[in-house]
Amino acid sequence: MIVVMKAHCDEKDIEHVLTFLENHGLSGHPSSGVERTVIGVLGGVGPSGTPGSIGGINPALGEALESLPSVESVLRVSKPYKLASREFHPEDTQIDVPAPCVAGGVVSIGGSEVVMMAGPCTVESEKQLMTTAEAVRKEGAIVLRGGAFKPSTSPYGFRGMGEEGLKLLAKARSEFGMAVITEVMTPTDVDLVSEYADILQIGTRNMQNYMLLDEVGRSDKPIVLKRGMAATIEEWLLAAEYVLAQGNRNVILCERGIRTFEKATRNTMDISAIPLIKHFSHLPIIADPSQGTGRRDLVTPMSLASLAAGTDGLLIEVHPNPDEALKDGAQSLTIQQFQALMPQVQAVTQAIGRTIVTK
Amino acid sequence: MIVVMKAHCDEKDIEHVLTFLENHGLSGHPSSGVERTVIGVLGGVGPSGTPGSIGGINPALGEALESLPSVESVLRVSKPYKLASREFHPEDTQIDVPAPCVAGGVVSIGGSEVVMMAGPCTVESEKQLMTTAEAVRKEGAIVLRGGAFKPSTSPYGFRGMGEEGLKLLAKARSEFGMAVITEVMTPTDVDLVSEYADILQIGTRNMQNYMLLDEVGRSDKPIVLKRGMAATIEEWLLAAEYVLAQGNRNVILCERGIRTFEKATRNTMDISAIPLIKHFSHLPIIADPSQGTGRRDLVTPMSLASLAAGTDGLLIEVHPNPDEALKDGAQSLTIQQFQALMPQVQAVTQAIGRTIVTK
Amino acid sequence: MIVVMKAHCDEKDIEHVLTFLENHGLSGHPSSGVERTVIGVLGGVGPSGTPGSIGGINPALGEALESLPSVESVLRVSKPYKLASREFHPEDTQIDVPAPCVAGGVVSIGGSEVVMMAGPCTVESEKQLMTTAEAVRKEGAIVLRGGAFKPSTSPYGFRGMGEEGLKLLAKARSEFGMAVITEVMTPTDVDLVSEYADILQIGTRNMQNYMLLDEVGRSDKPIVLKRGMAATIEEWLLAAEYVLAQGNRNVILCERGIRTFEKATRNTMDISAIPLIKHFSHLPIIADPSQGTGRRDLVTPMSLASLAAGTDGLLIEVHPNPDEALKDGAQSLTIQQFQALMPQVQAVTQAIGRTIVTK
Amino acid sequence: MIVVMKAHCDEKDIEHVLTFLENHGLSGHPSSGVERTVIGVLGGVGPSGTPGSIGGINPALGEALESLPSVESVLRVSKPYKLASREFHPEDTQIDVPAPCVAGGVVSIGGSEVVMMAGPCTVESEKQLMTTAEAVRKEGAIVLRGGAFKPSTSPYGFRGMGEEGLKLLAKARSEFGMAVITEVMTPTDVDLVSEYADILQIGTRNMQNYMLLDEVGRSDKPIVLKRGMAATIEEWLLAAEYVLAQGNRNVILCERGIRTFEKATRNTMDISAIPLIKHFSHLPIIADPSQGTGRRDLVTPMSLASLAAGTDGLLIEVHPNPDEALKDGAQSLTIQQFQALMPQVQAVTQAIGRTIVTK
Repeated sequence: MIVVMKAHCDEKDIEHVLTFLENHGLSGHPSSGVERTVIGVLGGVGPSGTPGSIGGINPALGEALESLPSVESVLRVSKPYKLASREFHPEDTQIDVPAPCVAGGVVSIGGSEVVMMAGPCTVESEKQLMTTAEAVRKEGAIVLRGGAFKPSTSPYGFRGMGEEGLKLLAKARSEFGMAVITEVMTPTDVDLVSEYADILQIGTRNMQNYMLLDEVGRSDKPIVLKRGMAATIEEWLLAAEYVLAQGNRNVILCERGIRTFEKATRNTMDISAIPLIKHFSHLPIIADPSQGTGRRDLVTPMSLASLAAGTDGLLIEVHPNPDEALKDGAQSLTIQQFQALMPQVQAVTQAIGRTIVTK
Repeated sequence: MIVVMKAHCDEKDIEHVLTFLENHGLSGHPSSGVERTVIGVLGGVGPSGTPGSIGGINPALGEALESLPSVESVLRVSKPYKLASREFHPEDTQIDVPAPCVAGGVVSIGGSEVVMMAGPCTVESEKQLMTTAEAVRKEGAIVLRGGAFKPSTSPYGFRGMGEEGLKLLAKARSEFGMAVITEVMTPTDVDLVSEYADILQIGTRNMQNYMLLDEVGRSDKPIVLKRGMAATIEEWLLAAEYVLAQGNRNVILCERGIRTFEKATRNTMDISAIPLIKHFSHLPIIADPSQGTGRRDLVTPMSLASLAAGTDGLLIEVHPNPDEALKDGAQSLTIQQFQALMPQVQAVTQAIGRTIVTK
Repeated sequence: MIVVMKAHCDEKDIEHVLTFLENHGLSGHPSSGVERTVIGVLGGVGPSGTPGSIGGINPALGEALESLPSVESVLRVSKPYKLASREFHPEDTQIDVPAPCVAGGVVSIGGSEVVMMAGPCTVESEKQLMTTAEAVRKEGAIVLRGGAFKPSTSPYGFRGMGEEGLKLLAKARSEFGMAVITEVMTPTDVDLVSEYADILQIGTRNMQNYMLLDEVGRSDKPIVLKRGMAATIEEWLLAAEYVLAQGNRNVILCERGIRTFEKATRNTMDISAIPLIKHFSHLPIIADPSQGTGRRDLVTPMSLASLAAGTDGLLIEVHPNPDEALKDGAQSLTIQQFQALMPQVQAVTQAIGRTIVTK
Repeated sequence: MIVVMKAHCDEKDIEHVLTFLENHGLSGHPSSGVERTVIGVLGGVGPSGTPGSIGGINPALGEALESLPSVESVLRVSKPYKLASREFHPEDTQIDVPAPCVAGGVVSIGGSEVVMMAGPCTVESEKQLMTTAEAVRKEGAIVLRGGAFKPSTSPYGFRGMGEEGLKLLAKARSEFGMAVITEVMTPTDVDLVSEYADILQIGTRNMQNYMLLDEVGRSDKPIVLKRGMAATIEEWLLAAEYVLAQGNRNVILCERGIRTFEKATRNTMDISAIPLIKHFSHLPIIADPSQGTGRRDLVTPMSLASLAAGTDGLLIEVHPNPDEALKDGAQSLTIQQFQALMPQVQAVTQAIGRTIVTK
């Protein structure tokens, strides 16, 4: 942490800051330039080995310093997350998920292979789910997506089939050998959803639902953590840090669009987040072009763009009859469109020197 | 709902849309202009009196229609919320909160009087809370704020004293006769927090935590619903609709800043949301200039601006020694600053023809 | 400038940065903390007294440094503007504008008095302008606004009356003794517009039209510089710095709303920019609630909010018959509405201890 | 245009709107639904063939209607641009640019072939330009980029070599047979820049500099129109419409990132704009990943992502020694990095079934 003093501060101001730092167990080292004095801050390392030892500096301290009358600004030197950072863990994390349909029975996310995850936005009926699962599996999807508990912006919208939906997902899994990913929305549902799912999804609206993050952090299931629609990369990695800090090291990030002024798409998909996450973190990242754009006609180009930018997987909404979907039909591919997408996915994956696991 | 057809669509395309509408229990009425055909959609009203009768139209239907190849766009005619709308309930809602310190023992939020709510961001100790409560009460605050359960962006930050903090709040209430507002973060805590608090606060990160909204909707406590940091006015009113739809009609909205590109403030406080909420809804609205700006030096001007724009109350962070605050010290007023603020609040309130309740 | 090195850098990396700095005439001072090394950068001060001496550091240098492989980030210590900063010029700047209608014939912007500026968005006809000017003058407006050259988002929209409009403005000035403010859109029009106007307005779309800024910087007219709709406070002050650097010290900033995700208003008016500009700069700031919201019903509350937050003036669109306005009718007050606004403006101005100049 | 009346309006209110419409030469057709009345608006078509005949409806009319007390909202049916729309011109526009280095001497932008444009951000010296031009040409770039007039956020930054820079660009063209693209910042420079350049670039800050758009619209040079950093897709196409309306049909759009809350990148590159522009318009679109991200390490992944999403070309900053660049060094590739990029560009282009023109 570096404290930048105001231009016209005097010795007494500097002393005040140094005393403030000492009172909080830190030491300050002033150095005066032509225009102003800056104070480097050292110390504050917590008990070795604890996650708290990220400089051990209470994040509120910086803000308190910034509000001292003689302080112009406080510059942070370290990232506020640790377990999620590539500095802490330089190698790519790979996360294994049981998937009987692939050779070896396990698919690995975050390695050289790209993984396709597809299925309906929401589980609506056995027929709808089974038809979709069979079709996407046939094309090479390994993971089946489908919401049983659904966040709905309106209280009058469809909120999912609940446990009934989970049972259908489990049935599809045993029939087609796919891994199942589904959303969990509240801490008390984590056990229930874990009974049926292979991967727990935290939705965009819950990215900062800290009690939910704590709870899935105590689970042993892989977690797909969607980016909050207004979350910076740093806040997103801090949310991952919540899960990691509880002991669950199997976090997969998922870019799904952020909120901007543009009205032509539901969200603006931040493709640059894919290489940025690879830069800052060792965690795998996948992309959701269905939620990311809200428009069916953009799913194919944005899937290919995500692959070209380095995504470890794609999460795609597919519905046998999107015109009749109870939720988010406008962004679901038809089965025919998904079939048309797959060879393009194969081609781009190959072009960038990766492979795609389909069996 | 109005369906706008593409410019070059033909009779068959129009038929397709009409059939689609019929299949969903609606009727379409095409009318052709110089450049294109539009189709008005009627019907779909649910059982009278139920909240579901907002045109009875499944929100997903519009999006499904929009994805038909011959459809250019779908225009929505009605607001998606009902109970929260001023059309449904033209008079201002006033919400009574027990507050022994005022004459009559009850303060009303949403009427002609402005209500001051103040206290520390986070309850840190008995001394800190009691000192602050006594001081802000003396200046005219009626409601005591203070977090016992705190959302922290970092897992290593301070997350509040929990029930211990709630007990201190209750103690301050009985000592100073103030009403108590405090945050509840997860459905399973609603009962516990309700034992101690007079008003339950839903924080910005939980504005779309629907299970929490459902749960507080079943409570009989007034709810302060903070705006999500990336929530449109419409989404915010839909979140209020969740609470209202469960039977709790005592919802107070709270503007606390939205996320924009500007970096000089933590959030950009959307003061125009205050008169807009008054336009679209009958619910009271208060303003939180501490969270809304993140800078102590902006709290006073933004408090006065909120009042001038019509806020029904202010929620202000005050700390006896902000430099030592465990959380958000940079945005807390000192007690002296709060004392200096109050006469200005009085003057502006009076200037706009309202009064402020202080005893 | 402070260079933060990556965690695992070695001596050679540090040497590389030091050499890089030396090659650019700067000196670096490394200091190693527990977790990483930071390098303070000194020197680079240009010829004394020149504006270029802001640390003399080429802004591109920081970015070039940031892209060195061993550098984590570069932290800037100084603000990039100088003439616009309060550090450089601690007293409030007051700008005098000739206005025969006030006692003394001159109105001062940026002092203790608040100045009302009002008139039509666009000059449409002599009758429209004269009617409006007479009415707003009668209520106390000192400055007459009105566009002769108008930016229109569509090439098929109305683009103003040009010089004919300027002549009408000059006629209104001589008839009612008001000062005239009007927009100039391109460098070659500066002389023409200066013949007729007392204050030149730079519109939001031209805030970073640097050749226009240079040109008005060489003028002796006061400049109202509207904030770009996506400009940070810092970029806005840098645009002001362009004008100041050319020798024109009479710059008035104007907050007129920024672009956010919210759709209920055309822009989100950033009221906090008013006290922030007062903090960072000595320049006066006014507010435009008509452009800032795009909704007539919000003009009154947002005018009062701007005053309460400390604005030095208000710029308000008034039209004798807004339903027939050729441009932006939706946000213009009627004359009756402006009459109703003025006593409220008076009351709030008084409440915050300022006065309003009306004659 | 469709006028949605408020829920409780009566016959008189409807009459008022109908009269208002008639007064503006339009006719209204009310139809009453269960909850409210909507009024379809017909007429207003201007003289056939003129661009003004986009429904002939003054854009301000809609807003004026919206501000009538009985009107809830006004829904627009048509896009506000015409010449730029795919409905008006269903086939892709292809724009030919003279480039002696390719077979036939002409390169076509907007067809099946992808075109590489590369060079320094800013022309700094003959050696820098020639070295870069030779190197990027050797790798397959057809168009040479390089700024002679540069917008600089700070008045103290480098603003380009001016005509001297243009001469160097022309020299590089004659030596390497490349086409030259360079920015023009103000109307009076259009002739000068046109003497030397093959393509005129309008920068992001000038996207709504309407007098400049008019002027290049009267030129016969192809125009690259960069997206304004806060421009919606619709505003961007309206800016293109300005150029088209003056008779210059050779407009190439360029996505270069938009402004969002994310701080890790200078801009958020909106890759989805590429397929969206293809959907709404017939004009070619290219991508600028250097400006779009501001980080050298993101240029390669975002180049590949843009290609996968369908861009017609890439505009890439390359510098022989980016550490010494006078401007934007942090986002320039080295020559070696550009060499490494090209085979990846080739592979992804091929994977999506397009070819890249390199000779």
